[in-house]
Amino acid sequence: MSTKSSDHDPYVRAEIAPPSGIAFPHKHLLGTWGLDPTTIQHLLDTADRYVDQNRRAQKTTPICAGLTQINLFFENSTRTLMSFEIAGKRLGMDTISMSTGTSSIKKGETLLDTAATLNAMHPDVLVMRHADSGAVKLLSEKMSCAVINAGDGRSEHPTQALLDALTIRRRKGKLHGQIIAISGDITHSRVARSNIYLLTAMGARVRLVAPPTLLPKDVDRLGVEVYTRMDEGLKDADVVMMLRLQQERMQGGFLPSLREYYQFWGLTRDKLAVAKDDVLVMHPGPMNRGVEIASDVADDFDRSAIEEQVEMGVAVRMACLDILTRNLREGGEA
Amino acid sequence: MSTKSSDHDPYVRAEIAPPSGIAFPHKHLLGTWGLDPTTIQHLLDTADRYVDQNRRAQKTTPICAGLTQINLFFENSTRTLMSFEIAGKRLGMDTISMSTGTSSIKKGETLLDTAATLNAMHPDVLVMRHADSGAVKLLSEKMSCAVINAGDGRSEHPTQALLDALTIRRRKGKLHGQIIAISGDITHSRVARSNIYLLTAMGARVRLVAPPTLLPKDVDRLGVEVYTRMDEGLKDADVVMMLRLQQERMQGGFLPSLREYYQFWGLTRDKLAVAKDDVLVMHPGPMNRGVEIASDVADDFDRSAIEEQVEMGVAVRMACLDILTRNLREGGEA
Amino acid sequence: MSTKSSDHDPYVRAEIAPPSGIAFPHKHLLGTWGLDPTTIQHLLDTADRYVDQNRRAQKTTPICAGLTQINLFFENSTRTLMSFEIAGKRLGMDTISMSTGTSSIKKGETLLDTAATLNAMHPDVLVMRHADSGAVKLLSEKMSCAVINAGDGRSEHPTQALLDALTIRRRKGKLHGQIIAISGDITHSRVARSNIYLLTAMGARVRLVAPPTLLPKDVDRLGVEVYTRMDEGLKDADVVMMLRLQQERMQGGFLPSLREYYQFWGLTRDKLAVAKDDVLVMHPGPMNRGVEIASDVADDFDRSAIEEQVEMGVAVRMACLDILTRNLREGGEA
Repeated sequence: MSTKSSDHDPYVRAEIAPPSGIAFPHKHLLGTWGLDPTTIQHLLDTADRYVDQNRRAQKTTPICAGLTQINLFFENSTRTLMSFEIAGKRLGMDTISMSTGTSSIKKGETLLDTAATLNAMHPDVLVMRHADSGAVKLLSEKMSCAVINAGDGRSEHPTQALLDALTIRRRKGKLHGQIIAISGDITHSRVARSNIYLLTAMGARVRLVAPPTLLPKDVDRLGVEVYTRMDEGLKDADVVMMLRLQQERMQGGFLPSLREYYQFWGLTRDKLAVAKDDVLVMHPGPMNRGVEIASDVADDFDRSAIEEQVEMGVAVRMACLDILTRNLREGGEA
Repeated sequence: MSTKSSDHDPYVRAEIAPPSGIAFPHKHLLGTWGLDPTTIQHLLDTADRYVDQNRRAQKTTPICAGLTQINLFFENSTRTLMSFEIAGKRLGMDTISMSTGTSSIKKGETLLDTAATLNAMHPDVLVMRHADSGAVKLLSEKMSCAVINAGDGRSEHPTQALLDALTIRRRKGKLHGQIIAISGDITHSRVARSNIYLLTAMGARVRLVAPPTLLPKDVDRLGVEVYTRMDEGLKDADVVMMLRLQQERMQGGFLPSLREYYQFWGLTRDKLAVAKDDVLVMHPGPMNRGVEIASDVADDFDRSAIEEQVEMGVAVRMACLDILTRNLREGGEA
Repeated sequence: MSTKSSDHDPYVRAEIAPPSGIAFPHKHLLGTWGLDPTTIQHLLDTADRYVDQNRRAQKTTPICAGLTQINLFFENSTRTLMSFEIAGKRLGMDTISMSTGTSSIKKGETLLDTAATLNAMHPDVLVMRHADSGAVKLLSEKMSCAVINAGDGRSEHPTQALLDALTIRRRKGKLHGQIIAISGDITHSRVARSNIYLLTAMGARVRLVAPPTLLPKDVDRLGVEVYTRMDEGLKDADVVMMLRLQQERMQGGFLPSLREYYQFWGLTRDKLAVAKDDVLVMHPGPMNRGVEIASDVADDFDRSAIEEQVEMGVAVRMACLDILTRNLREGGEA
């Protein structure tokens, strides 16, 4: 197959536009908290239209040509940064990426001054990752352009939740009513949090399956079911979403040992047997094989959607960049 | 507002060209030292034409399409590197950026061999920052293409001085005759040095206001007035330009303590009261709030031009890239 | 001269295509091992056509527009990474570069999972450098797109060998029959290894000239002549290719001291006197002057081709990117 947009009807890509009345209701995308189902569905539909029959997010007509996207990552990342950079370039954006190592933040500047400086460069969209919960929101308040949260502390990682939702919807046909077990280090996971908000908003039945020490304190208010045993939590599940064990954040005795963690909480074929036959296994990556997931489960291509998640990542980020910059672009798309 | 160039008359951007007889008289832009007023004015005029009514440096027709810009930074930087990268992309350049961490310089190569290697890649413009004074000039002697100094040691940072001058000219109408107090760590500041050369060349009255330990040794030859007290140095000033206290360079007892520094040399409302009512407050960033400048002064949007400086930075760098590559481009613009 | 492609007949660039029957016979370019002479010649011919009369690899019509090139370097590099990035941009590629510092590999992901993730981003070409021999090959087995090895451990660095070959061919007219002495730290050198395979395949007479401790163990199987004295190994040589002394890999007593190394193995005018009068001196860079090569030899522009090697590097990488992505592109070029 060819990757040239001229192979495809370019108008298919160019005409993606929100049906009247459901334009994106926010300036920024800081989290999935508070997003309504219509908006979520519109984001997913838009993303889905970028994906071709090989699950590749297609290069479009350069609908974002002339726009400037800054990716500013205060935490290291390969996959998310690369995904946003590819997404931007596929839309024709001018993309500028900077990682923490080369930042003057170390020179003692406050976050608000960094925001003022970034704003004065007049980007059209800012994608930001930060180690502190709330930092992206704080910065976004100073920005004239759209800000996309690419992960902040333990708080939110909305594009991850959107790509997870798109993956589930493509595999299962819908989100509503699906039994989705999220298992592992939920306390430290912005991925879990964004997924909980989005999936419950879409009518999925979300279960958290984790040892009590790895459950968030506000678990009662999340609208989820809580399980502290894998055999109960995974029973009849449609989707099992494993989380990365954030070993770098685990100082302080949350767990006895990795070996013991794996024995009780690692996803193995045995533990998975209680789920539905066609259960979908997901992981946001990077995986610790033999810690939170067994290799044969990760590599079971009938049930594992781990690569499809990455594929949907590019499409979802294209949709977010597209939709959040529509008001800057001319004419019919706005 | 829209950011598409097609919203504007594209010819306005494309036709920017030096009036006959005042093409840029140098191959490189290594400093403001020795730049004549006509050349400075031409650079500022060109930059100014890139700025729209929102103080955004506009995307142009891609007048530099097909040209290759290498940004090679041997010192960390967010704002300057990003500013040059945005400037290049807005002109349609292919930009390639590299920061010191990923450089083979650590492998023991000499600077002249690095220069020969870079030259053999045949970029059309090289933007370079280096921790050593004179390093950019040394390297430029080996380069066939235009070199722009993005800051070398304590020596020069010409685009910073140009963006400062453009900011002052836009706010005050002219540079000639303005009383401009530069205050703070002048010894270690390439920003101060480039500003002194440029502003005196344009007929401004430049004052240096600093403790004797932070004044450069050649201060008598700079054509400036010297003050060692804030109340005298800021009296009737049209512009107060505060410098960043280079704490990382301050080992060696130049100052007693940050608290004491702030008390005597930090810019507060009280100290600023002796300046003209419509005084303009500037800072090249990143700021140490509570060290060289009080927060309420930095955030006083009537008098502070700190964000406008960053905005003018993109425009000034576009002008420099544009003008220094004109001889490479076709036809009428050369 | 101008760098605009419109100054040149664009069709000259666009029509570069393999004569029928000699399309590139491999999916990846992992090494020069096993490349047949026709394929090598086709790569060199293609590269050569990109070079203008100033030895600059010209910007082409954007034949790779819409394609995505990922440069993923798990070892630091300036010249190779920059060269690939320039090469990609000159073909119109969307290029995305990442160096090891900003990678999540440190988070414990396996190389195969990294490969799966990269593959799921659907790049059209992946350029990869890795500190471990064989790592690029391992990863390439998981990739749907073309992979170019930009250097892996002590194994191969095929584009370096191709640019060396192009340099020799341009200077000497042909590769066949040339006496080429490769001297220095051969054990640790992927450059040497790729050159040996390529040059012997093209019928050159390759000599390895090194102390026994710096010769590879499989030297008898390489089809080369071995010398352990410079005066014998350089006698009548057409080309002397010096290697970088990998000091960072020299822990373990391979050599007594740098001074002694230079005395016996550094390339000086005296040692070079036994070679042919028009001998070509080459070095892959970065050079350790006064260690493996004397400054006056490196700077002898009649005989040194060191800068031309870098120049050919951009052209050779353009050719590799062009040829390896042809099957993705439309119509007549495939």
